[in-house]
Amino acid sequence: MELASSDPVRPVGRGRKAQAAVRAATLAELLDRGYADLTVEGVAQRAGVHKTTVYRRWKNRESLVVDALAEHFATDIPIPDTGSVEGDLRALAQALVQSMTSPVGRAVQTAMLSDAGRLPEIAEARRGVLADRFRRAEPVVARAVERGELPADTDPAALFRTLAAPVYFRLLISADQVAEGAENAEDAEGVADETVRVALAAARAGALARARPVTDGEQA
Amino acid sequence: MELASSDPVRPVGRGRKAQAAVRAATLAELLDRGYADLTVEGVAQRAGVHKTTVYRRWKNRESLVVDALAEHFATDIPIPDTGSVEGDLRALAQALVQSMTSPVGRAVQTAMLSDAGRLPEIAEARRGVLADRFRRAEPVVARAVERGELPADTDPAALFRTLAAPVYFRLLISADQVAEGAENAEDAEGVADETVRVALAAARAGALARARPVTDGEQA
Repeated sequence: MELASSDPVRPVGRGRKAQAAVRAATLAELLDRGYADLTVEGVAQRAGVHKTTVYRRWKNRESLVVDALAEHFATDIPIPDTGSVEGDLRALAQALVQSMTSPVGRAVQTAMLSDAGRLPEIAEARRGVLADRFRRAEPVVARAVERGELPADTDPAALFRTLAAPVYFRLLISADQVAEGAENAEDAEGVADETVRVALAAARAGALARARPVTDGEQA
Repeated sequence: MELASSDPVRPVGRGRKAQAAVRAATLAELLDRGYADLTVEGVAQRAGVHKTTVYRRWKNRESLVVDALAEHFATDIPIPDTGSVEGDLRALAQALVQSMTSPVGRAVQTAMLSDAGRLPEIAEARRGVLADRFRRAEPVVARAVERGELPADTDPAALFRTLAAPVYFRLLISADQVAEGAENAEDAEGVADETVRVALAAARAGALARARPVTDGEQA
């Protein structure tokens, strides 16, 4: 986000515009420098506001980072309804890849896994985001079962985990080139394709069935 | 690692013992504080050596962290040969879970994903570790194909990725309780079980076949 061009004298002021600029600058600083080197001064400078403007609303860099991340996840991945389980899973996988390969998405993911993830508020935010994404698999599975595409006892959480895990693994852990940006669009396509193929094969074979209540308690 | 009790006057000295103590202290500091708050002073104090002893061998905290991580991965996961593909995959998955849930393993993984992962040497070390682990799947797949347990065109890299991704996802990203330690041993078992089931079903269904050379070039 850039400075508000409509207000050239006092760049962004103290109101909502300034807050948006500070949040955007926080994400940009996370992307460029990482959490360890992020400072309130650097964020203020990037946002074009005075340091005291930042401190008026956020008490330290931790609260700044938590707030910027929470705001980012307010807009999330939609629940697809393409008419087939394969189409729905592909849409979910592609949305996940897209969200994780965009510059802001990468900054946010990296920050959540970085030392910032040690903050209880960030760990909590991460759990919230994932729980929300897991829930998005529920209607997809329910419709697939109705259409007779998947076994009735398919566990939506296990299916979403199977779908999402390789995306996270390839983009964050093994850091395939797909993470490098748009010039690798066909690789992003490949990541989504493989994970859809695997998740579907596993679900159809009954490998993603709900845990039976025979054992002591439920599996998460 | 503790101070060498055999040398109570000058705790660990300047030699190999001191170096081992410094590396162990680096991993311990990574575990307790994370990379952002790790200092050469803190490591020296924990190792029971003088700061100058550390600086004699390592020029800064970055080289210290890179060296401690590289040393840790010298001992790695063995290649199983249990007589069945299911047994081999279970052994691989269990070794991975074990390595990632041990305190040192968690410190190392967390460090690699933290801001320390921005260092080119650490990114390189991470790629090396993963490449090595991917190679461990090759003999497992070759034997399974020979025994007629898996399709001949099964891609060992895709199989290992399918096996490892949920382990990384559950232990690092969604941070299931299994990461909290030994009291959750049955959950660790559950993580390994699910990923073996999924990987086997996908491989048997042909969802992990090598990319055919019809398209432009090979998939990684």
